[in-house]
Amino acid sequence: MKLTITKNYEELSQLAAMELLQAIYKGQAERTNIAITAGKTPIRMYAIIQDVLVDKYYPHTNYYNFDEIPIIGKTGVTMDALNRLFFEPNAIAKEKIHVYDENNYQGFDEKIHQDGGLDFMMIGLGTDGHFCGNLSGTLTSFDEGSKSVPSDINAQIKDRLIELVGGEEYLTEKYVTFGPKTVMNAKHIVLIVNGSHKAEIFRRLMTENISLELPASILKLHPNLTIIVDQEAAALL
Amino acid sequence: MKLTITKNYEELSQLAAMELLQAIYKGQAERTNIAITAGKTPIRMYAIIQDVLVDKYYPHTNYYNFDEIPIIGKTGVTMDALNRLFFEPNAIAKEKIHVYDENNYQGFDEKIHQDGGLDFMMIGLGTDGHFCGNLSGTLTSFDEGSKSVPSDINAQIKDRLIELVGGEEYLTEKYVTFGPKTVMNAKHIVLIVNGSHKAEIFRRLMTENISLELPASILKLHPNLTIIVDQEAAALL
Amino acid sequence: MKLTITKNYEELSQLAAMELLQAIYKGQAERTNIAITAGKTPIRMYAIIQDVLVDKYYPHTNYYNFDEIPIIGKTGVTMDALNRLFFEPNAIAKEKIHVYDENNYQGFDEKIHQDGGLDFMMIGLGTDGHFCGNLSGTLTSFDEGSKSVPSDINAQIKDRLIELVGGEEYLTEKYVTFGPKTVMNAKHIVLIVNGSHKAEIFRRLMTENISLELPASILKLHPNLTIIVDQEAAALL
Amino acid sequence: MKLTITKNYEELSQLAAMELLQAIYKGQAERTNIAITAGKTPIRMYAIIQDVLVDKYYPHTNYYNFDEIPIIGKTGVTMDALNRLFFEPNAIAKEKIHVYDENNYQGFDEKIHQDGGLDFMMIGLGTDGHFCGNLSGTLTSFDEGSKSVPSDINAQIKDRLIELVGGEEYLTEKYVTFGPKTVMNAKHIVLIVNGSHKAEIFRRLMTENISLELPASILKLHPNLTIIVDQEAAALL
Repeated sequence: MKLTITKNYEELSQLAAMELLQAIYKGQAERTNIAITAGKTPIRMYAIIQDVLVDKYYPHTNYYNFDEIPIIGKTGVTMDALNRLFFEPNAIAKEKIHVYDENNYQGFDEKIHQDGGLDFMMIGLGTDGHFCGNLSGTLTSFDEGSKSVPSDINAQIKDRLIELVGGEEYLTEKYVTFGPKTVMNAKHIVLIVNGSHKAEIFRRLMTENISLELPASILKLHPNLTIIVDQEAAALL
Repeated sequence: MKLTITKNYEELSQLAAMELLQAIYKGQAERTNIAITAGKTPIRMYAIIQDVLVDKYYPHTNYYNFDEIPIIGKTGVTMDALNRLFFEPNAIAKEKIHVYDENNYQGFDEKIHQDGGLDFMMIGLGTDGHFCGNLSGTLTSFDEGSKSVPSDINAQIKDRLIELVGGEEYLTEKYVTFGPKTVMNAKHIVLIVNGSHKAEIFRRLMTENISLELPASILKLHPNLTIIVDQEAAALL
Repeated sequence: MKLTITKNYEELSQLAAMELLQAIYKGQAERTNIAITAGKTPIRMYAIIQDVLVDKYYPHTNYYNFDEIPIIGKTGVTMDALNRLFFEPNAIAKEKIHVYDENNYQGFDEKIHQDGGLDFMMIGLGTDGHFCGNLSGTLTSFDEGSKSVPSDINAQIKDRLIELVGGEEYLTEKYVTFGPKTVMNAKHIVLIVNGSHKAEIFRRLMTENISLELPASILKLHPNLTIIVDQEAAALL
Repeated sequence: MKLTITKNYEELSQLAAMELLQAIYKGQAERTNIAITAGKTPIRMYAIIQDVLVDKYYPHTNYYNFDEIPIIGKTGVTMDALNRLFFEPNAIAKEKIHVYDENNYQGFDEKIHQDGGLDFMMIGLGTDGHFCGNLSGTLTSFDEGSKSVPSDINAQIKDRLIELVGGEEYLTEKYVTFGPKTVMNAKHIVLIVNGSHKAEIFRRLMTENISLELPASILKLHPNLTIIVDQEAAALL
């Protein structure tokens, strides 16, 4: 594990941008597969990248979303965000975007394997200790690969999903996510964490044992994990 | 995971030799840290390597043993075997051999971290599903790093240890081993498995879920795991 | 040789920025030695880089200037430009900047060798076919490493130098430059060329034989040469 | 340049075997292109390699001969030697052997480029300073790529060729060879030199300037050149 505590959010974004650009660059000459994150943490990072990236010069760089909350009648929550944050501003070629959703999640671990495996993942940390869609309370084993989770698995999660999709009338029966096995098999994982509201869960992540209740704890067994955290989120260490 | 089933033991040994030589070679120009295995499986591999290796040309290659069963009044079981199989025939420089034993196991994860981490491990699979000294029945969590295990943790293990040290009078209170966390943090793991007596445990490893009872099952979450197995050991797949 | 013709100067700058960032990034974990160029071509590239780079996170990235025209009583032409374009805006740590000048040029090839060699060079192409300070008319052999060139080697060069230093009263007897051997020994060379005024020399570079009169022609023997050129400069190909 | 002086021929062979095995290994996962040498120097190296190499496990490793002296009615001198030394004992798959000869030499630089370039070359040094078929007296420019040389370019060369093909009745009008440009564009070059009869030319190579009369002198401009020489050949340094 390589842990860097940055002075502030701007430096976290610069450091994360360097990591992502480094991964994208490899696609000049050979296939490289990158799974990226939506959410608030990477917003500034994506803005920085926009000035440097010209998609056509990295023809072998392929992108994957790692979870999806479907919305009835619309693009799902994750792909909608990634389109706005990254794919559209950088005019990423359609054929390099591998959309992961409720229709193809069952064969997706095999698809990733056929594609040569994930080279790089950029992920965030939830206040409940989740990574990707592996919320606390949804894991039964670290063996799990790509999977679906019932939207009503518990009341708290259901409320959250309703908020994300914009009303119960848009909620489907399940959402989908890469499981721990899918993520652990990525060659390099970068975890970005910012803000004082993440300080308590980050303290727990760094100090508690591995457990299904704190899903991100399994990442500590990964041999190539980079954690970038700002001072606010690292304040309780 | 990269799985190769070889025609026979000779080919397994050739393929494993290439992996180990590849790791050793990196020590020409930069520090590289290698943990290697004793036991029966690697015997032919070490014989092959002897014709190619000239230690002095790889000054930055460092070696570690990953477990030790102390013997009262003698060199421990693992180091004794590694000396005979690898260190002495290749005249490996003493300062490049990092002996791990009952006296230094408590600070060893930190030492490895200070040394830059393990770049490569070559390990075997026990018929009970163990790797290194993580025998079935000795693990309480996959969090565990370098650790000691009481020699009398159960009767079966005690009998086995007595046999290995050559009599109860030579047995100490505990043996030491890299735990799952130490091993999972190595950048590349090569697991070698041969012979029909390993066929049942290898079938279980490949098909069962991750569990503390089958310690090697955690290795399936490693992003850079190479398994080399001969046809006899793979017969039940 | 990898040749990319970009749509315009902006894309050339983005592509060059990615190359330089890629080189800088390696200095996170291990020493990396980079020689960079001043001049007009990289101005936009350096501006792009400023948003991404936080020097302190790349502690092992070291920088070298590859030529210098001394100015009596002032910082030399090249270091003055690099300070303004790159070192000061990015607050590069002083101990990572290896100033090359008229006082140390004689031992500099050996210093580079001791430092582990150059990993990356970003250079431009002069309208006379020069690279670094190897102007047409100054080379006697491709063997030459770090060297000095008399300021009055010919009238044309002298006039140019006087202009660069801001008047004959500031001109010293010689200027210094990495020679072909120093440059060819860099592991990766990126050559950036832009504008219609470079079109004729770029055509010559790509089509003529290797000769001392066209110094940059030797670069075509380098196994890891990346050329980034905009459409205007490539117009006569 | 990385220069290693070995104690004797056996150590030279071991060190060279490690270099070649390192190159071959890359063909496990991705295409790698290797040009190898015949002659006396590599004989022991090829014997060492035979115990480690199982061709089928390196499916993406491709081999090229870098010169050929055709023999009327028979396999040429170089391919005949490589078949005996390396291709047949290791049962290298036919489709991975790219035969270079008098019929295809004109398009061969382009073929190599299409194949992704040469990743590795192992070459020897002639007592006249030649590398590949670039004998002293045959070069007119370091620009030259794959080329043919008239068998009667001078009397000395003609006599040598007659000896190599086994009599004047077997000699064709020309032989073919990779030129300096082809070789300089390989990513890694290993030059092996042994024996007291090479001591004088090796001294000249290391101390004289680059010149067409000493063809191998151009190799000193290559950024990734490894020279392995035994003490006898290095005696005059």
